[in-house]
Amino acid sequence: ELPPQAAVCRCSQPLSGFSGRSQEDEMMLQAVMKANPGSDFIYVVDTRPKLNAMANRAAGKGYENEDHYTNIRLTFIGIENIHVMRSSQQKLIDVGDMRSPSMSDFLWGLENSGWLKHIKAILDAGVFIARAVADEGVSVLVHCSDGWDRTAQACSVASILLDPFYRTIKGLMLLIERDWVSFGHKFSHRYAHLDGDPKEVSPVMDQFLECVWQLSEQFPCAFQFNERFLIAVRAHVYSCQFGSFLGNCEKERRDMRLRERAHSVWPQLWKDRAQFTNPLYQAELSQSQGVLRPNTTPYCFKMWKGLYNHAQRPERPPPPRQSPAVRGESQQLEQELTNHKEGPAGGPAHHHSGPRQAEDDRQPEMSEDPQQGGGCPCCCLTGKREAD
Amino acid sequence: ELPPQAAVCRCSQPLSGFSGRSQEDEMMLQAVMKANPGSDFIYVVDTRPKLNAMANRAAGKGYENEDHYTNIRLTFIGIENIHVMRSSQQKLIDVGDMRSPSMSDFLWGLENSGWLKHIKAILDAGVFIARAVADEGVSVLVHCSDGWDRTAQACSVASILLDPFYRTIKGLMLLIERDWVSFGHKFSHRYAHLDGDPKEVSPVMDQFLECVWQLSEQFPCAFQFNERFLIAVRAHVYSCQFGSFLGNCEKERRDMRLRERAHSVWPQLWKDRAQFTNPLYQAELSQSQGVLRPNTTPYCFKMWKGLYNHAQRPERPPPPRQSPAVRGESQQLEQELTNHKEGPAGGPAHHHSGPRQAEDDRQPEMSEDPQQGGGCPCCCLTGKREAD
Repeated sequence: ELPPQAAVCRCSQPLSGFSGRSQEDEMMLQAVMKANPGSDFIYVVDTRPKLNAMANRAAGKGYENEDHYTNIRLTFIGIENIHVMRSSQQKLIDVGDMRSPSMSDFLWGLENSGWLKHIKAILDAGVFIARAVADEGVSVLVHCSDGWDRTAQACSVASILLDPFYRTIKGLMLLIERDWVSFGHKFSHRYAHLDGDPKEVSPVMDQFLECVWQLSEQFPCAFQFNERFLIAVRAHVYSCQFGSFLGNCEKERRDMRLRERAHSVWPQLWKDRAQFTNPLYQAELSQSQGVLRPNTTPYCFKMWKGLYNHAQRPERPPPPRQSPAVRGESQQLEQELTNHKEGPAGGPAHHHSGPRQAEDDRQPEMSEDPQQGGGCPCCCLTGKREAD
Repeated sequence: ELPPQAAVCRCSQPLSGFSGRSQEDEMMLQAVMKANPGSDFIYVVDTRPKLNAMANRAAGKGYENEDHYTNIRLTFIGIENIHVMRSSQQKLIDVGDMRSPSMSDFLWGLENSGWLKHIKAILDAGVFIARAVADEGVSVLVHCSDGWDRTAQACSVASILLDPFYRTIKGLMLLIERDWVSFGHKFSHRYAHLDGDPKEVSPVMDQFLECVWQLSEQFPCAFQFNERFLIAVRAHVYSCQFGSFLGNCEKERRDMRLRERAHSVWPQLWKDRAQFTNPLYQAELSQSQGVLRPNTTPYCFKMWKGLYNHAQRPERPPPPRQSPAVRGESQQLEQELTNHKEGPAGGPAHHHSGPRQAEDDRQPEMSEDPQQGGGCPCCCLTGKREAD
């Protein structure tokens, strides 16, 4: 069903400032377009609110000047930044923790948190990308500021919508490995694995998982996994119990030798897959559905009670900070990381996703011969873009 | 599971005023208690807000004076009156009709309508009654003002919770025949079947059906019917296409000779039952669940998108007023009714439900030998209560 030439690419914002221009970048985007003979333009999706993107120009960053690129269509989606999201989630958690709220307390609190508005924005970004690829056959280049938060959200939601494989248990594992772990989503900073800057903390992954949940409510037969799986993945993003989500990028994980010293979370979740399976899943129906086309009017969103209304479920997800024991271990790893440091840590996410992987490559376990990252030949795309 | 002696009884408010007292009424309530040897009191549930009940005393009506009854426990539930409900539903309809609402428009509008608060109040009334009967083995006498609106809502929700039979297609049909049609719910007035007092219009039945829907969302395998069935029933409450919901009480229907001159809606819905069946229904599980114990925290309620967000579904429920053709026919019936009148129309709902019916009697079709109403031997219970 998908025109095979249309691709979803991702990067960070360009170093355009007020008048900056990079011929190589223009040629790169032209090449992305040409790789898809079916269309004579590409979409550039800046997932930020336009005002935020403009503000970045003062620092020499910003967004593409359409005058300099021959064949791009630039669009802003308006997903808010990590600080807005952190504050919004805190308000939502407070709503879910109320003892005996009135209906008015609940609905007012839900509205006031702004949370569902943000979830809708992320889902809308994914829908835009999926439509461009599936319906128009047009490639999309997605970025935000650094390319590791909103970009990861938008691209992974688009993958869920476009390809039934990512709606399976293995598929979601692989998607998280690809669009989040490998692309350098900053797990340690975002989920406060170590005492760090509290302003770096933000529920970016929570929001992606909630988008998947909202979709699963709208398409109850299209997902192989259930809500529990999403909650378990989220729990481990925060737990530090496995090595999968430690560190802020592939380089940090390599320097910590995490693959030797820690277990991956995926084999464990796979072993427990019986409890994570959605009894309503219909593989054939789901396959035949192909691209999901969700309704994203506000009427279709609701509070994720299973996650935020703790009183209702015994398996309370772990708090954002891990236990002291685990933290001690992580600190030790962090210490070793510092000793091993060969350069500044936390390199940016310099990759773009090529055409969709062949079925054979789809192994989320990352066992024997893991792609160790950093060797991605695609870095030329973003090499001239912002470095941090 | 149910202690067979505990009963749900219903009536209108007592004519107590500020100092009224009826020894016969006190003896009647004592008799209700004694019919259930398992407990030494009965609950009297006044489904109105206490303030409303107090206001009625000025007109010689009101609520039971606990000093005069030896063994009752009086409780107020706080379901608002028909005027509040009418206004609330109009606001909700406006929310559902918005073209491109923001998330804030939607959530603010939903809160502002007050609708879900009212649905929760009705469900809470049902839960109170069901708990009393199932968990405490205590009989409950339920009333509001006239006994045909809030009382019908509370008692029928309690039946849905108490008995899996009422969660089947046939069971719901029978329940509506019993607690709504036979007990004199004023269908013509409430759903504006004829030009009448617009202040008599109110979505009383809509609210009951929505309570059932909210329950079906919380217990997706416990109901034999799906959302479509509830929407179809509601459509016919408004449509006047069948005789089932014409008139305001059994006497009006008898005087109009509706059983000879109009079809019942139930055989038609039963014929179409294939499209009304919930694929998730598990009869055994549902039976084994027995009494439903819903969570009624505000987190568990949501807007009934299938009914109120028309944009989303092609089968738009019919508007509250019927087509001119049907109205003409109804007016003719009304005319004949006037000619046939033997006394003041619209007698009150003077019945109480005895112990639950035996399985054999459960036939919603009401075909050969319909109970023609008025002959109920239980009227002694409410004979001394308010007449209109």
